[in-house]
Amino acid sequence: MQTITLLGATGSVGFQTIEVIRQLKNEFHLSAIAFGSNIEKALPVIYEFRPEYIVVKNKETKQELEKTITYNPKISVGSEGMTEIATLPDVDIVVNAVMGSVGLEPTLEAIRERKKIAFANKETLATAGHLVMKEARKYGVELLPVDSEHAAIHQCLKGERTDEINRLIITASGGSFRDKTRNELQNVTLKDALKHPNWSMGAKITIDSATMMNKGLEVIEAHWLFNIPFQQIDVILHRESMIHSMVEFKDHSIMAQLGSTDMKGPIQYALTYPKRLDISITKGLNLIDIGKLHFEEMSLERFPCLKMAYDAGKYGGTMPAVLNSANEQAVELFLNNKISFLAIEDFIQKAMDEHTIVKDPDLSTIIEVDQSTRRRVKSYVN
Amino acid sequence: MQTITLLGATGSVGFQTIEVIRQLKNEFHLSAIAFGSNIEKALPVIYEFRPEYIVVKNKETKQELEKTITYNPKISVGSEGMTEIATLPDVDIVVNAVMGSVGLEPTLEAIRERKKIAFANKETLATAGHLVMKEARKYGVELLPVDSEHAAIHQCLKGERTDEINRLIITASGGSFRDKTRNELQNVTLKDALKHPNWSMGAKITIDSATMMNKGLEVIEAHWLFNIPFQQIDVILHRESMIHSMVEFKDHSIMAQLGSTDMKGPIQYALTYPKRLDISITKGLNLIDIGKLHFEEMSLERFPCLKMAYDAGKYGGTMPAVLNSANEQAVELFLNNKISFLAIEDFIQKAMDEHTIVKDPDLSTIIEVDQSTRRRVKSYVN
Repeated sequence: MQTITLLGATGSVGFQTIEVIRQLKNEFHLSAIAFGSNIEKALPVIYEFRPEYIVVKNKETKQELEKTITYNPKISVGSEGMTEIATLPDVDIVVNAVMGSVGLEPTLEAIRERKKIAFANKETLATAGHLVMKEARKYGVELLPVDSEHAAIHQCLKGERTDEINRLIITASGGSFRDKTRNELQNVTLKDALKHPNWSMGAKITIDSATMMNKGLEVIEAHWLFNIPFQQIDVILHRESMIHSMVEFKDHSIMAQLGSTDMKGPIQYALTYPKRLDISITKGLNLIDIGKLHFEEMSLERFPCLKMAYDAGKYGGTMPAVLNSANEQAVELFLNNKISFLAIEDFIQKAMDEHTIVKDPDLSTIIEVDQSTRRRVKSYVN
Repeated sequence: MQTITLLGATGSVGFQTIEVIRQLKNEFHLSAIAFGSNIEKALPVIYEFRPEYIVVKNKETKQELEKTITYNPKISVGSEGMTEIATLPDVDIVVNAVMGSVGLEPTLEAIRERKKIAFANKETLATAGHLVMKEARKYGVELLPVDSEHAAIHQCLKGERTDEINRLIITASGGSFRDKTRNELQNVTLKDALKHPNWSMGAKITIDSATMMNKGLEVIEAHWLFNIPFQQIDVILHRESMIHSMVEFKDHSIMAQLGSTDMKGPIQYALTYPKRLDISITKGLNLIDIGKLHFEEMSLERFPCLKMAYDAGKYGGTMPAVLNSANEQAVELFLNNKISFLAIEDFIQKAMDEHTIVKDPDLSTIIEVDQSTRRRVKSYVN
């Protein structure tokens, strides 16, 4: 029996993590959860698993929860609370499924306590990959990716040597607007953008898929997780998202991992690793029913966010943090109907152009750049 | 530097093994070769690598070779000679690329000498898998498959546990006649049958691909190599042969290995395992150029040889030997224009129907069944 802390329990990945834990109740005990302020969504989970520790966004949510709840968990607040439950002595696995860079500090502390970390928070690696991986190496902790692409690469690399890799091949569905030209993107709406063709995910990541920034962040994440130079990371359009990603080796052999478009597979893989257990809540792939898999070239002209991500990754220093913060802020503006879809790209590019890179930034520098970038991007709205 | 004995040097796999060794001259030394009687084909190889040991089919070939050759290798004859060079103290790797069950005895002896064995001789495993694997387990020898399908599965299983496998998924191109109905097969010619759509191989295996017996033998080979029940081995039609095979695990994750349709990849994989080295003599896969991969159901009605192979495998005992010997003999008759393409199937089925299974046969029983089956199948020609 392994004990789990789940950060981001009411998000899309968080909820699917709950489903995985539910069907593996003999394997896992959910001891602590963190969520923002959506008490209504959290309550069924709280009553089902009765976690001993709960962390919420702020004091108001804490007070509201205390009034509602019928047993006595320890309820804490904010980043400090998250760090506390990520480092509990009894906890074996920390699932980091929060969105955005707020997951960074709890992750670093969990690494220092040598927790097994299931990692769905790509913003953390995108902004501070050098810090996270340095600590992971120092404490001998392996980060287990929950993203389907990185879980695929992790599986393709089982038993392999990283110095025998030619390149990583990350697949991309193309997102909601894959069949639109750049010209057609001028008039797309928020509603259109939220319709992902293959995956059911949260709003922010669905927009990131449409801009291809999601893939860009995945490229940066892959760079850090697998210690592979950006020149050896390719992105390929694969409409069906059945091949979750691939690795090509020096001898031209390509290993690929395939699965249904369901996050529960990768989540379970991370939780049970190095074992594989039966899964009853996802269907297997039926390649005969699918019939065909398609592959197309990924265009950096069509998807400038992907190019910006490669650029930011190669520049290094604080630039990936600018990329990520500018994107988070711009997407929020788009989700609030303040800016157009194409303005997301423009705002990120502008924020990157205006930024002066700090090399090898420490945590406080990254946090500072994160905050100032958000302010700056907000100021672009006229 | 590792020293290699190559059995079957003038066959298709043998010749491609030579190409692999040639580009890795700093890694491998070709010390001994065996071939049949094609001196003309063997001589360039002999002069290039100057092996210390040469084995040929019979005394006549030996005498002819002695007259021709300008240095003094030790030249031996037949199965005894093959066993001798497969067990030389200095030899690290034995490549078994002979065709047919003649490879069995040298393989068993090489296992007992704990040689690393690169294995392209599926008939040996099909006829005597229980004996070969028993010895391999006893002496702790891993058989490294050279067949692209089994090399693929071997790679998919790297770092994995066999008790976590759901099923093996072996891909089949469909062979020369994949687009023909059974009715259209009535009038096909030898010339038609020898045109394989994807792979350039020897005549016998090309016919076996057209009848799907090749896939049947691969199913039996996979059963033995990976210790997987026949119910957990599926065959899927995949026209492009780019995915060489797959493994589905309990958690529905599918690992696949992809590569070009070139045996040199799998051959090099077996020789260099557990390392992967650069390869200059094959091209990498370009999935974007390929664009689409297709998958279709494999029909056991359309391809009865595949059904016969599953049946023979499940019956066990001497039945797989009957399947293989009847097939070798029937294909030889077809290659000599003595029987029609569809008669191959009929002859094998008849031989199986007429056979009384011996359980857990020893080597001499298998050899006896092999010989009597060949005689019997010959007698079917009226």
